[in-house]
Amino acid sequence: MSNDKLRLALFGSGRIGQVHARSIAENPDIELVMIADPFIDGAQALAAKVGGRAVADPEEVFGEPDLDGVIVASPTPTHVDLMSRAAAHGLAVLCEKPIDLDIDTVLACREQIAAHSVPIMLGFNRRFDPSFASVRRQVADGEIGALEQLIITSRDPAPAPRDYIAASGGIFRDMTIHDLDIARFFVPDIIEVTAVGANVFSDDIRELDDFDSATVTLRGRDGQIVTITNSRHCAFGYDQRLEAFGATGMLSAGNVTATTVRRYDAAGTEQSGPFLPFFLERYAAAYRAELDAFARAIRTGEPCSPGFDDGVAALILADAAAESATTGKTVGVAQA
Amino acid sequence: MSNDKLRLALFGSGRIGQVHARSIAENPDIELVMIADPFIDGAQALAAKVGGRAVADPEEVFGEPDLDGVIVASPTPTHVDLMSRAAAHGLAVLCEKPIDLDIDTVLACREQIAAHSVPIMLGFNRRFDPSFASVRRQVADGEIGALEQLIITSRDPAPAPRDYIAASGGIFRDMTIHDLDIARFFVPDIIEVTAVGANVFSDDIRELDDFDSATVTLRGRDGQIVTITNSRHCAFGYDQRLEAFGATGMLSAGNVTATTVRRYDAAGTEQSGPFLPFFLERYAAAYRAELDAFARAIRTGEPCSPGFDDGVAALILADAAAESATTGKTVGVAQA
Amino acid sequence: MSNDKLRLALFGSGRIGQVHARSIAENPDIELVMIADPFIDGAQALAAKVGGRAVADPEEVFGEPDLDGVIVASPTPTHVDLMSRAAAHGLAVLCEKPIDLDIDTVLACREQIAAHSVPIMLGFNRRFDPSFASVRRQVADGEIGALEQLIITSRDPAPAPRDYIAASGGIFRDMTIHDLDIARFFVPDIIEVTAVGANVFSDDIRELDDFDSATVTLRGRDGQIVTITNSRHCAFGYDQRLEAFGATGMLSAGNVTATTVRRYDAAGTEQSGPFLPFFLERYAAAYRAELDAFARAIRTGEPCSPGFDDGVAALILADAAAESATTGKTVGVAQA
Amino acid sequence: MSNDKLRLALFGSGRIGQVHARSIAENPDIELVMIADPFIDGAQALAAKVGGRAVADPEEVFGEPDLDGVIVASPTPTHVDLMSRAAAHGLAVLCEKPIDLDIDTVLACREQIAAHSVPIMLGFNRRFDPSFASVRRQVADGEIGALEQLIITSRDPAPAPRDYIAASGGIFRDMTIHDLDIARFFVPDIIEVTAVGANVFSDDIRELDDFDSATVTLRGRDGQIVTITNSRHCAFGYDQRLEAFGATGMLSAGNVTATTVRRYDAAGTEQSGPFLPFFLERYAAAYRAELDAFARAIRTGEPCSPGFDDGVAALILADAAAESATTGKTVGVAQA
Repeated sequence: MSNDKLRLALFGSGRIGQVHARSIAENPDIELVMIADPFIDGAQALAAKVGGRAVADPEEVFGEPDLDGVIVASPTPTHVDLMSRAAAHGLAVLCEKPIDLDIDTVLACREQIAAHSVPIMLGFNRRFDPSFASVRRQVADGEIGALEQLIITSRDPAPAPRDYIAASGGIFRDMTIHDLDIARFFVPDIIEVTAVGANVFSDDIRELDDFDSATVTLRGRDGQIVTITNSRHCAFGYDQRLEAFGATGMLSAGNVTATTVRRYDAAGTEQSGPFLPFFLERYAAAYRAELDAFARAIRTGEPCSPGFDDGVAALILADAAAESATTGKTVGVAQA
Repeated sequence: MSNDKLRLALFGSGRIGQVHARSIAENPDIELVMIADPFIDGAQALAAKVGGRAVADPEEVFGEPDLDGVIVASPTPTHVDLMSRAAAHGLAVLCEKPIDLDIDTVLACREQIAAHSVPIMLGFNRRFDPSFASVRRQVADGEIGALEQLIITSRDPAPAPRDYIAASGGIFRDMTIHDLDIARFFVPDIIEVTAVGANVFSDDIRELDDFDSATVTLRGRDGQIVTITNSRHCAFGYDQRLEAFGATGMLSAGNVTATTVRRYDAAGTEQSGPFLPFFLERYAAAYRAELDAFARAIRTGEPCSPGFDDGVAALILADAAAESATTGKTVGVAQA
Repeated sequence: MSNDKLRLALFGSGRIGQVHARSIAENPDIELVMIADPFIDGAQALAAKVGGRAVADPEEVFGEPDLDGVIVASPTPTHVDLMSRAAAHGLAVLCEKPIDLDIDTVLACREQIAAHSVPIMLGFNRRFDPSFASVRRQVADGEIGALEQLIITSRDPAPAPRDYIAASGGIFRDMTIHDLDIARFFVPDIIEVTAVGANVFSDDIRELDDFDSATVTLRGRDGQIVTITNSRHCAFGYDQRLEAFGATGMLSAGNVTATTVRRYDAAGTEQSGPFLPFFLERYAAAYRAELDAFARAIRTGEPCSPGFDDGVAALILADAAAESATTGKTVGVAQA
Repeated sequence: MSNDKLRLALFGSGRIGQVHARSIAENPDIELVMIADPFIDGAQALAAKVGGRAVADPEEVFGEPDLDGVIVASPTPTHVDLMSRAAAHGLAVLCEKPIDLDIDTVLACREQIAAHSVPIMLGFNRRFDPSFASVRRQVADGEIGALEQLIITSRDPAPAPRDYIAASGGIFRDMTIHDLDIARFFVPDIIEVTAVGANVFSDDIRELDDFDSATVTLRGRDGQIVTITNSRHCAFGYDQRLEAFGATGMLSAGNVTATTVRRYDAAGTEQSGPFLPFFLERYAAAYRAELDAFARAIRTGEPCSPGFDDGVAALILADAAAESATTGKTVGVAQA
């Protein structure tokens, strides 16, 4: 095996950090050098499984020689600081969404890191889902003519814990933001946001002044309408679909099951198994492809996609959705 | 065969009149006595095929003895007058949607016919579609728990002629009104309407100050969100689907194909045939079931469903949608 | 309505007779003149529903003036006699399968009726199933290149009563015969039959020396292989499918459900409803199309398809299958 | 990472050897120590990609200390020799199918290795396909009652080269053998084999006195019927399906596509992408699971499944199929 593996460090050994660590372990071209987490037990447990050195202090990462880049999978409030320092050290960054819940903080961060021309990639993993990416490619190739309507369905299997929701920034900034990025993946120039939120099942979420369900309608510069349907729960698993409707046809991307088994009995026919339960399983291939794209960007110097500005744009749309859901008015947006 | 067939007359020998005439011809319990159309050639041609007497003057219908009811399938501007006169003659009425494009005219008509307690049924045929009706029944039976989200997709295969569009009252009153009724079929109490219209493919429609595409979001009294996606064209046929998402599951109803044939070749796999082209084919069974329900209401004296008030409610929602799409504001509605 | 309706009489007011009576009632071009059944109560009950005169004695049918044809839906042992007499009276005949269970009787009947050049159609209704017919047409049009393999699945929902089975002639002559005709619909020249029978669930059928399940493999003159899978029961309804596999692709035809509703819940996803329960429902459209074809043949004088010889050929294959299942040897057949 | 990785050597660097090498590279519990291939260039190229030492002489493998087992993925004629020597050296063996094309050679080999109680696993990878394995598990759990019929469809995308076919032992020993093993996976005791072969598209294969298509019917001890449909080509990809039909229901396992994308346009609807092209892609997960099972058997000492005797049994069935296809007679088999 060649010795010029890419050397990466990982911030955060939580759920999403573990996803990246495992993707690296299965990638023969990347070496996981360090796992940094103030909760050192987590870092050590993960390092024992996938290799790398566990450290509690992020400073050790910035002191490590010959590092190529970092993956920021620590809690959201640490993102801006870690990203800025990594950039200052000339390290490429793959940062989980969101950059920050506050748009001013995000814009300030952008200015700061602009000076250092390092690759910055945002963790909008769904762009790398093989089915979504295939639809995107076919739309770009003109397979369905001009895109007119995009319908995104995105439902989580069950609400996150109350504490998580409380700190999440609300459904639009925490959950819908992924769908807003997928909207921009297909329709980069969004000019209007109309959102409706609802509380139909969770008293917890209602008490937190957040919505448990939402519908967002976006208008693109060329008149395209994007519709996003969200729910914080879903009895039949993780529901992640889209339909791209164009002048000459439609392409849909559906949910994923573990097998192709279908059941036929007195109760009904063609019953498929449950959908893959949540993002770790459903987007496993997407996370691996995302890592590949990050590695390629580092090696080639080509711009990252999605990049920092995609994170900015998605947050602006999330803020607009939150405003629209509160005021009952369509909100115009100008991409910053 | 029994001699106590129900005796009906039909106003209008156009496309939708022909649908009803054919349904009657195949129904052993109903006799088509008269077909009235000022365009007498149309009435005669239809009578030659399915039986009944062709007349030009509607007055002949009202003079006919022993008639049980009428079907109003003439142009929209004639609906209120024919319905009112039929009611005054004690005839049951099955009236095609919309009652009228103007809500004040509709409300005046309501007052007028209230005096005569005849069965009045509105031609919202989709309620009788076997698949939609089955979903509705299962939702009512609690099969998916509390209904939280209803997603309606409704796309016509191709725009109607420019003249038709010009007189149609706009996409919301002409096309969406069917979907608004389906929304009320599941969520009778709608309290808010938010609509976004777009012009993405038809210069004709744009010139008429109408939209060729639209998305409407409704909020029910209990927080349910209904989303309607409309387009005036669809490259792959008549696209008529819905998804009812509830606390414990989801039920979907899809499009209909003429056969179950699937094709597998080098270009792809599991390719199904085209969807049934338009409402005549797709809703053929629905029209027959609607006629059965009308006949049953006449014979039993039970209230018609959908009735006159369902027509009023749908028009109120269509007006609200038109207002919302123009103002960019959510519009509150109180069911009249 | 025109007065030159085709005038038909019906022998048999049982299950299959009722199907034909109802098809006639819905067909504006055909008049059901008489229903003949020694069990006069059945004939009268049916006539009350769909019209026509009920008679006990078949002779009355042959004495009726201006009759165009008869449908023979009486018990199998009466087929040959009724068909022969009808032909002698110059009446067209649509005869339910099988002509008879004994090939010599069938061949004698063929000789007898050959003298009278009346249209004789065999009730192999499945050829008129819209899905099977569409596959057949596309295969003929070369859509999948040369046909190489045909896979037929045919399972009844539940075994017929013991008495019926006892008189049925065995699974191959009673049940498989329909599939053998479909095999010949695609591959007219069958040269070899290999059959395997099994007893896996029914002691009744075993005691009658019959099989409850069977697999038949046919070889066509050009090397095509046809595989038929049969079972006398099926927990999930009436299972009627086929796959036509050719050099450049495959076409499949599947089962039919009453609606397009799909269910998603914690137990599974995309569950469709039950298949239409049995032949009356599944092949309702086929029976109507069969009647249309019979009427067309009478009016135009064009040869019936399937005709008498198709009935002969199917019985020869059924006999060969029975022999093969008993001897464990492939049986060569020469089409009589 | 722990140091007690399982140490394996690989014989053969061809297509199937590469599959195993890649599975090992992605498996953190197994180390690929050596790749042996007289065609040393192939071994070296593969070692450069996935690690391990490339050697030309198999003797070097048997001289390597601390080896746990070998994978035999070299040409069929070398299997018996390599397996026997590996067993004599106390090494566990995962051997690709078939053990040998000659049943006497296979039985002699069995005697020879019986003395050495090493784990011997046969490379019937399909047993590890997640969908097939799920159906098998559910059948064993009684989910569909007693199994009555098993329908296996297995078509290769395109014929192997003429030279390969010439040395393959014929369609039954080379291709059907996988399906015969799947048949035994569900119905271990097969008592009768009936086979029909055909030549419908390949002159090459006809000239080699082999069949390009075949249908095999097996009878299990309890009356179950298994039907296998084979073709050496398939215009729409690698067609690998099965249906398990039982007393109370049916379970099917279908083909696999790279994405869930569906296309709708004027030509048709719901068109899925092509099936995964061939076994490398379709059974990638199966090969990984097979390797896991082999590793587990080495570590735990539990018996391998499928084991040597499964290889013997499949070859006996393949021989019986070849005989039946030639003689036109059902062949009884007693499992050796």
